[in-house]
Amino acid sequence: MRKALVVFSGGQDSTTCLYWAKKKFDSVESISFNYGQRHCKEVKIAEDIARGARVPWQLFHMDLLNKICDNSLTDPDMEVDKEKPANQPPNTLVEGRNMLFLTYAAIYAKSKNIQNIVTGVGQADYSGYPDCRNEFILSLNKTLNLSMEYEYKIHTPLMWKNKKEIWAMADQLGIFDLVRYKTLTCYNGIIGEGCGHCPACFLRKRGLEQYLKEIGQK
Amino acid sequence: MRKALVVFSGGQDSTTCLYWAKKKFDSVESISFNYGQRHCKEVKIAEDIARGARVPWQLFHMDLLNKICDNSLTDPDMEVDKEKPANQPPNTLVEGRNMLFLTYAAIYAKSKNIQNIVTGVGQADYSGYPDCRNEFILSLNKTLNLSMEYEYKIHTPLMWKNKKEIWAMADQLGIFDLVRYKTLTCYNGIIGEGCGHCPACFLRKRGLEQYLKEIGQK
Repeated sequence: MRKALVVFSGGQDSTTCLYWAKKKFDSVESISFNYGQRHCKEVKIAEDIARGARVPWQLFHMDLLNKICDNSLTDPDMEVDKEKPANQPPNTLVEGRNMLFLTYAAIYAKSKNIQNIVTGVGQADYSGYPDCRNEFILSLNKTLNLSMEYEYKIHTPLMWKNKKEIWAMADQLGIFDLVRYKTLTCYNGIIGEGCGHCPACFLRKRGLEQYLKEIGQK
Repeated sequence: MRKALVVFSGGQDSTTCLYWAKKKFDSVESISFNYGQRHCKEVKIAEDIARGARVPWQLFHMDLLNKICDNSLTDPDMEVDKEKPANQPPNTLVEGRNMLFLTYAAIYAKSKNIQNIVTGVGQADYSGYPDCRNEFILSLNKTLNLSMEYEYKIHTPLMWKNKKEIWAMADQLGIFDLVRYKTLTCYNGIIGEGCGHCPACFLRKRGLEQYLKEIGQK
């Protein structure tokens, strides 16, 4: 039996990955992380979506990260960058986040005899996050295998897709409305279509408009 | 100025590394982890040694690890393996531990503009821990650099030394008695010479006897 663990945030990307994994694997579990992020309702939304998908879900508390790394997602006193600064990543970058998420996911997965780990990271709409790139994921996969002498396989079904293509994928998986109205991507914590003007909303909305245009609905 | 961060447990190996780093770098800091290990006095011992060495020290709390991984170091109901089982690592193995320690260390180091990270892992007295091997450390170094777009250098001064050679190194660094009487390596939590019969004491004691014999003191 092929089992998979999905690193799940309740956003557009990981929700699409969750349903992708349900099609591809015999058994799927999901985990979310609470790391002091700005919008703790993100966690509740993730739980609701996992429950609706009938996928076991667990919440991992990872308090340490926001104590050692300044960023606007976990520091309520810091304003989210409106645009990506020219020569550095946006201040929404949480250093090492994906590396920690995937390492904890791998430790947990091995304890449950799960070799497949699914994550929604991608580099098509590259936003300046080095830990979303394919080169990083491949290197991490190798390091995890060495670390625990286990044959992990990290799956990144969205790695080369832009937002328009991720909308198309959600539609093919039959979850277009679920993703559109029930997921949370917005940096300002507004579910579904979001605030419309933060960088996350900008990418999501542009992709949606492109997709709707492509299928002739707008 | 060359700055280094030492991952420090207060045991023989990391204490030797701490003093090695003090010689090699212009500025040294240290961190220890509390991850629910059996002997919480380990943390106090680490603090005392760092203070004695006049090296800034911080404690990082990492509760999540012992919630997702069964092992005899963090589970008080599990007895420590007396010997290494034939076809598997001993139950003192904490899956992914060094990977998490070094990832957190790297995140913290970058926030303080520290590129050098020092760890006492080694594979000469290989005890069945995959995350002590050189191949793992090299892969992790590469993954960390990709993860945070930073030029880390992980130093493993003990990688190819057996315990006898680590005793010799402590002696050369002028900390032979400090290591012998003030560090904690024993799985049963006994400082200095330890309980004498757990696997950690066995290796430490055998190395000490070999070293004392070599220098003609026994």
